[in-house]
Amino acid sequence: MSKGFLLVISGPSGSGKGTVSQALLERNKDIVFSISATTRKPRPGEKDGVNYFFLEEEEFMKRAERGEFLEYAFVHNNYYGTPKDFVLKEIEKGEIVLLEIDVQGALQIKKNYKNVVFVFLLPPTMDELKNRIIKRGTETEEDIELRLKNAFEELDFVGEYDYFVVNDKVEDAVKDIEHIIKAEKLRVKRHSDIKKKVMKKEED
Amino acid sequence: MSKGFLLVISGPSGSGKGTVSQALLERNKDIVFSISATTRKPRPGEKDGVNYFFLEEEEFMKRAERGEFLEYAFVHNNYYGTPKDFVLKEIEKGEIVLLEIDVQGALQIKKNYKNVVFVFLLPPTMDELKNRIIKRGTETEEDIELRLKNAFEELDFVGEYDYFVVNDKVEDAVKDIEHIIKAEKLRVKRHSDIKKKVMKKEED
Repeated sequence: MSKGFLLVISGPSGSGKGTVSQALLERNKDIVFSISATTRKPRPGEKDGVNYFFLEEEEFMKRAERGEFLEYAFVHNNYYGTPKDFVLKEIEKGEIVLLEIDVQGALQIKKNYKNVVFVFLLPPTMDELKNRIIKRGTETEEDIELRLKNAFEELDFVGEYDYFVVNDKVEDAVKDIEHIIKAEKLRVKRHSDIKKKVMKKEED
Repeated sequence: MSKGFLLVISGPSGSGKGTVSQALLERNKDIVFSISATTRKPRPGEKDGVNYFFLEEEEFMKRAERGEFLEYAFVHNNYYGTPKDFVLKEIEKGEIVLLEIDVQGALQIKKNYKNVVFVFLLPPTMDELKNRIIKRGTETEEDIELRLKNAFEELDFVGEYDYFVVNDKVEDAVKDIEHIIKAEKLRVKRHSDIKKKVMKKEED
């Protein structure tokens, strides 16, 4: 039997982790997306169990205390967390579970769980990162400066990751991640009884 | 600066490591082939420094004693070895160096050098392995039995390798190894100063 793994796609804001993750899922229907839990109210069109698991704060905190999240954080007045149970079950079935998360979240995951492939998404240049943050158009100059400062500092954590991918063109970044996935599937450590498989191929 | 690595393609006899290595080199002209040293006499058409480095036994043993081989072995009355100097220089330049070697040789390499990606080539089934060994037509029944027994025992060492690739169709095996190479190039540990690269992209 071969186990799957958790694929963490992470990077500073402006690295394009959201866009790249969506494109990767589009092209690879077999990858399972890790749905986060949150205490934020659903926006129009968002469905429970599809976009998020929507929880009341009391329920969220109960689960957090029971250690049911691989990581969780308080962001913009709401809690967000990665349900452990879902991820572990899918991995046990042999699936690859994709989690798109910021750098702080990835570092939390690294402490809590071992069967993870960490990919750090990099902007091609800091100028491009700045352009991307500005293009969102939703932030004040102060916000932009803060995001840039954070992004700059977060680059220091690339050393904690397994792979880095430069996101110049989304399509190229997706291809790089696909190579990583294909290689990681061939890792000896993910497979038990390789010898047995060869010996008894006909029983497969 | 990014360093290259030594790519060891290995497996029992009948796994097809020679065929796969040649096909891989054909399709990837940038991969550097590790030329072995040997005390065996050149066969017609073989060139020194192309097929092998041909050495007198005295010279070979001198180099072995000075630790100038990553591994060496005595096979069919001749010595064969992997010159360390050549491999290390190419890797320092950022090249990927391919070494095709038997399981015993790979295990020696593992003891002597760390910057290696080990790929274990598997036959799809033991029956197919037997067919391949028989097809060579150069061996007695006794030889075939011995090779099969050795191959069976060598499968136990797959756990010492990083990746395994099932060589059912050569082309598919080559593609799998290409994924491994592309992924390994994106490993954070092979790159120093990723942050600096992003910061000063224009100076590249």
